[in-house]
Amino acid sequence: MQLGMVGLGRMGQNMVWRLAKAGHEVVVTDTDPKVIEATVAIKSTVATITEDVVKDIKQAMEKTGGKIIPAATPQELVAKLKGPRAVWLMIPAGITDKVANIYAPLLQKGDALIDGGNSYYIDDIRRSKELKAKGIDYLDVGTSGGVWGLLRGYCLMIGGDKAAVERLGPIFKAIAPGQGDTPPTKVRKVTGAEKDAKGHWHAVHGPEVTASGTSADSYLHCGPSGAGHFVKMVHNGMEYGIMAAYAEGLNILKHANVGKAGRTAASAEVTPMREPEHYQYDFDMQAVCENWRRGSVIASWLLDLTAEAFLENSELPVETNSVRDGGVPDSGEGRWTLLAAIDEGVPCPVLTTSLYSRFTSRHEEDFAWKIVQAMRRKFGGH
Amino acid sequence: MQLGMVGLGRMGQNMVWRLAKAGHEVVVTDTDPKVIEATVAIKSTVATITEDVVKDIKQAMEKTGGKIIPAATPQELVAKLKGPRAVWLMIPAGITDKVANIYAPLLQKGDALIDGGNSYYIDDIRRSKELKAKGIDYLDVGTSGGVWGLLRGYCLMIGGDKAAVERLGPIFKAIAPGQGDTPPTKVRKVTGAEKDAKGHWHAVHGPEVTASGTSADSYLHCGPSGAGHFVKMVHNGMEYGIMAAYAEGLNILKHANVGKAGRTAASAEVTPMREPEHYQYDFDMQAVCENWRRGSVIASWLLDLTAEAFLENSELPVETNSVRDGGVPDSGEGRWTLLAAIDEGVPCPVLTTSLYSRFTSRHEEDFAWKIVQAMRRKFGGH
Amino acid sequence: MQLGMVGLGRMGQNMVWRLAKAGHEVVVTDTDPKVIEATVAIKSTVATITEDVVKDIKQAMEKTGGKIIPAATPQELVAKLKGPRAVWLMIPAGITDKVANIYAPLLQKGDALIDGGNSYYIDDIRRSKELKAKGIDYLDVGTSGGVWGLLRGYCLMIGGDKAAVERLGPIFKAIAPGQGDTPPTKVRKVTGAEKDAKGHWHAVHGPEVTASGTSADSYLHCGPSGAGHFVKMVHNGMEYGIMAAYAEGLNILKHANVGKAGRTAASAEVTPMREPEHYQYDFDMQAVCENWRRGSVIASWLLDLTAEAFLENSELPVETNSVRDGGVPDSGEGRWTLLAAIDEGVPCPVLTTSLYSRFTSRHEEDFAWKIVQAMRRKFGGH
Amino acid sequence: MQLGMVGLGRMGQNMVWRLAKAGHEVVVTDTDPKVIEATVAIKSTVATITEDVVKDIKQAMEKTGGKIIPAATPQELVAKLKGPRAVWLMIPAGITDKVANIYAPLLQKGDALIDGGNSYYIDDIRRSKELKAKGIDYLDVGTSGGVWGLLRGYCLMIGGDKAAVERLGPIFKAIAPGQGDTPPTKVRKVTGAEKDAKGHWHAVHGPEVTASGTSADSYLHCGPSGAGHFVKMVHNGMEYGIMAAYAEGLNILKHANVGKAGRTAASAEVTPMREPEHYQYDFDMQAVCENWRRGSVIASWLLDLTAEAFLENSELPVETNSVRDGGVPDSGEGRWTLLAAIDEGVPCPVLTTSLYSRFTSRHEEDFAWKIVQAMRRKFGGH
Repeated sequence: MQLGMVGLGRMGQNMVWRLAKAGHEVVVTDTDPKVIEATVAIKSTVATITEDVVKDIKQAMEKTGGKIIPAATPQELVAKLKGPRAVWLMIPAGITDKVANIYAPLLQKGDALIDGGNSYYIDDIRRSKELKAKGIDYLDVGTSGGVWGLLRGYCLMIGGDKAAVERLGPIFKAIAPGQGDTPPTKVRKVTGAEKDAKGHWHAVHGPEVTASGTSADSYLHCGPSGAGHFVKMVHNGMEYGIMAAYAEGLNILKHANVGKAGRTAASAEVTPMREPEHYQYDFDMQAVCENWRRGSVIASWLLDLTAEAFLENSELPVETNSVRDGGVPDSGEGRWTLLAAIDEGVPCPVLTTSLYSRFTSRHEEDFAWKIVQAMRRKFGGH
Repeated sequence: MQLGMVGLGRMGQNMVWRLAKAGHEVVVTDTDPKVIEATVAIKSTVATITEDVVKDIKQAMEKTGGKIIPAATPQELVAKLKGPRAVWLMIPAGITDKVANIYAPLLQKGDALIDGGNSYYIDDIRRSKELKAKGIDYLDVGTSGGVWGLLRGYCLMIGGDKAAVERLGPIFKAIAPGQGDTPPTKVRKVTGAEKDAKGHWHAVHGPEVTASGTSADSYLHCGPSGAGHFVKMVHNGMEYGIMAAYAEGLNILKHANVGKAGRTAASAEVTPMREPEHYQYDFDMQAVCENWRRGSVIASWLLDLTAEAFLENSELPVETNSVRDGGVPDSGEGRWTLLAAIDEGVPCPVLTTSLYSRFTSRHEEDFAWKIVQAMRRKFGGH
Repeated sequence: MQLGMVGLGRMGQNMVWRLAKAGHEVVVTDTDPKVIEATVAIKSTVATITEDVVKDIKQAMEKTGGKIIPAATPQELVAKLKGPRAVWLMIPAGITDKVANIYAPLLQKGDALIDGGNSYYIDDIRRSKELKAKGIDYLDVGTSGGVWGLLRGYCLMIGGDKAAVERLGPIFKAIAPGQGDTPPTKVRKVTGAEKDAKGHWHAVHGPEVTASGTSADSYLHCGPSGAGHFVKMVHNGMEYGIMAAYAEGLNILKHANVGKAGRTAASAEVTPMREPEHYQYDFDMQAVCENWRRGSVIASWLLDLTAEAFLENSELPVETNSVRDGGVPDSGEGRWTLLAAIDEGVPCPVLTTSLYSRFTSRHEEDFAWKIVQAMRRKFGGH
Repeated sequence: MQLGMVGLGRMGQNMVWRLAKAGHEVVVTDTDPKVIEATVAIKSTVATITEDVVKDIKQAMEKTGGKIIPAATPQELVAKLKGPRAVWLMIPAGITDKVANIYAPLLQKGDALIDGGNSYYIDDIRRSKELKAKGIDYLDVGTSGGVWGLLRGYCLMIGGDKAAVERLGPIFKAIAPGQGDTPPTKVRKVTGAEKDAKGHWHAVHGPEVTASGTSADSYLHCGPSGAGHFVKMVHNGMEYGIMAAYAEGLNILKHANVGKAGRTAASAEVTPMREPEHYQYDFDMQAVCENWRRGSVIASWLLDLTAEAFLENSELPVETNSVRDGGVPDSGEGRWTLLAAIDEGVPCPVLTTSLYSRFTSRHEEDFAWKIVQAMRRKFGGH
């Protein structure tokens, strides 16, 4: 199939190459001509990709007939696509409206515009209505996979009209991971429950059933417009929570040697540690994470990455992180997840707390602490 | 009555003066002879007290016959008290065991040892058992009031045997605030409920009843040993939560002008502010607090103090707080409150969160943030 | 002065009576003619007010010349007011737009429309722009005081143009509490800080200063349109947090007798209580609250009310609460406070948690718990 | 090697079979003779294990010479082991002390006692001291793996003296998962950082390095006595947090159709939903989870299990969960994790909140809600 890809940042580039490997013809553009050139030449402008990977892409393209075709302008990109066209925007959420407004007038009835960025689903609802009035399908696609997507594939969460999603199935399938080493879930249906002699309940199992549909290839039509970014939004909200759970637990392990420091002096202000002999452990953080990767209940891909980070440098110096100063950033999804939860009247203390930790890391709580200090000074204590 | 007071820090001194004003004979000691001298001479060694206050104390002592008698050593202090003696320890929690072990051998059957500090109630349970074996009453007294106690009186929460608490009633009454401007609670009993025409429930009221007992004078026998410090512990846990609630809300008001700063740039990392025009307010923090002091639901003494702090200096510079560096301290009670809640299996997310904010202000979360950053670097995003 | 009051629920009625006592002429209307009649006759249709209070209102009206004038329709109400008119809406937030749209066409350039309800401040920004285009002043007024406002006065937080706020000053002053027993905050300015011999920082104090402006009468012009409801919104968010802090702490005290229940059996599932002897306390909740009302750091009006509730009925039976089933309700402000905090990027874990507790009380977390249970069943434990 | 296994619940049985498969000689006992018999006969008394699995165990035992030998009493078990003996307790934490006190006198200098249960690490510190005095090694082993351990292996976290841990290496290796499909982490060392042209920091990478030691087989000597259960404790604390993050996010997805319900009525009490059209999604929970299993950042084993649970029954009826009534249980580790964090002064809001959700599911917050309701009734609102 043909696809126009607008925006050749790391994710855009990787998607183009996955599509080309699978035999699709991808017309590509970007505001930076050098990036267009590099994408066609299969040279990453943002990350290191090995010779082997490049070779693998080129060989696959030869075999499947996949093509990457440069376009200098939106007009050229659209012109190089035969109708019904499909144009995929892979750009920062903040400029989606602007860029969508450039392409919308160039597209025709029956064409499709796809937003693969991190848009707010409420904007999707609005945009899809506007485009539907012109007969253009608008699909919102949440993508997860980060810098690993080239090799691992991108998990896709799609919102919009069913017919358009089905028409573009081969595109989604090429970008998505596919089953790989993870076969579809297979279980026996639970049809009821019964009590055992000890009064415990047990499930009663029926016939075996296997997960069907595209979700086992990790792309999914989630629902009408906005549904893709809604699911992606909550996905990221959960991601923040899971990351914080790992980080908090590892922080407790890291501080398990505080008993050595001797915070035991008598003082009216700070409570002494009652039993410093209980906090004498110097844990090897990498070994602990490595150990949990197999067999434990908390094994996960995020844990794998954490084990890598500790092996790279056991002290995780901030200098080696992507942001040196200013704490942990947050993109919109974590916040929007909370807005949705609050609108729904549904509590999500873990997700909230994990976002607030990021705010706090950026010193946004400082004035509150000053107020607490001021109160303490005024009443003299605590 | 006679009382021995051990420890003449700000609270100890203030209590001595309240007792002397009420006509009691207080034998006082401290490790610092200058402090003993100052206490007898009614000169504060830790705070500014006005001439008027000093004069008021002296006049009252003349009228009531109250006396302050110095004692250079524990032995001297005990010798100057007639049995059944009562010795009140007003010292940092960390050295209570040490000092209690000095006085216990000097006391006799029928005497009472009172711990007015911030001890862990579990230690009270142990200590009271040890002393009971020798026929000595041990009372644990939680005190609240901070630096204002001299004028306002100290709210007292008392644990131990009923007979000993009653015997020392006049001592507690002198230290406690008394009714002052706050008459005992008076309501009509609620004896049932009935539904109105709209299906809303309303209380059915019975006869009028007034709060009785010593609690209306703000000293209370809470229960057996440990009960006093248990109630004080939870009191402080709540105090942390209430302080944090004020601080967080005021922090939101303080940041209500972020729309002016223009955090609106498009970026894949940080979400732009969608509607900066909603955050254009520069609130006068002092005026807002002052305004809430009358009529509003959140009027309180802590709010009064906050209004004072803002009037003193609208920016609450950390330099003028009691602790310049290192964040907000916590004494043991906030932590112990959580330990109790966890043991009880009772959730207390607000109290917990307010304690954790203090930990965070002291940078104890930093390693967790580094882990989150490291994960982000590894998967490339969020 | 003249004022039109639209909406004679409990708060509307009380405001009318406070205004009339102060000598103002209040033209009143409501959708229910009986309520209009009762308001004029000084008979509460929603609460019990004593004979003494009624007498007091009538005597004051006689002395000051205050009047309450009925109006059957919006047209009649507006007609009975001389320009520049002021119409105060005291109605549920959900219908404010509808009712504002009824009055806007009846008003003229120079008139003022006042929204005293719990509107979302973002709606105020919009509404004030629409009305400004017609030369009508729109003021948003957050009010706190609940059912006690008749006697205690309503704390008022006002947003809108300064000139209009000043013109209506006498109206606000009559509704607000005034200084009463709470004189304006008076302190000595903090001009710097100095270190003492022990290395502790102390404030350096300058000249004495007293809080000035209307805030000492507890009405305040907070800023431009929306500022009044913004401050009220955060006020209520804080209120939720403070209420939760009290409730959580008292819940811990209530469960301090769990050691008696003997949750000590060995089991692989639920951890036994390690030291039941530490949880043997049966606290008298009313006495504890009563005790804290004087001298303690956490004394407040909310604590006074809690002491009343326990004295009314020590078990706080749900039947006697305003809502029998369905948990604790929340009006919009608590939610909007969080939305503002999230927009600002400011953490407010205590306020958030207190709102989530209300959601949880309404069973909105149940599906999450089912998922946790399902996971546990699948991996067999924890 | 020889090992004595005490306690043949599901985990004990599975461990025995893994050991026998690997060629070890396991002397087994339990309080229930039928369970001993079944273990020897390779018949599970607690779970369904397929014919294939049983056959696989038997064949492996034939090949490796592994043996399972019954012992009716502690004395018999110890007698059947040659010194230096190793006895592994796999029993509920609540009775560990009791059982340890039975075996300790039967063991001799140079023997080892292993606690594989969920003990509190503080008890390990005490117990190991007592046994060390007799020359007996005490090892504390945290195990994760749940009901899947027979096939997947148990991740082991070990505390105690290094020599004893090394001596028992083959035992741990047989119980642990081994590398399986998860090769040891391999990365290039991060040796520094450099700024790119845009001012972003990037890691500077050095030579490649591979995780070494036993952690890649998923058993780890974590440190001195207590270290194994400390790490396991925090592991479970994190597990609670991760589970809650998934559960909360999925709960938000589940409620994404609340706009259909029409919570839009005007009321002074409950805020109407402002934009119900934003909440019109009926998500297929199984498909969403299935979709995330590949390529997404939050892929994990717990997510795999969740996808299974939804496929079994999309409504997750409580009747099919292991606990029908009384909410979500918690074993001790989640609580102890918080106690450790609080002692360390380290914030862990996510882990705390996830534990509190379990308390709340068991109605432990109800009294707090009654207090909030009572306050609301008293001041009339919110």
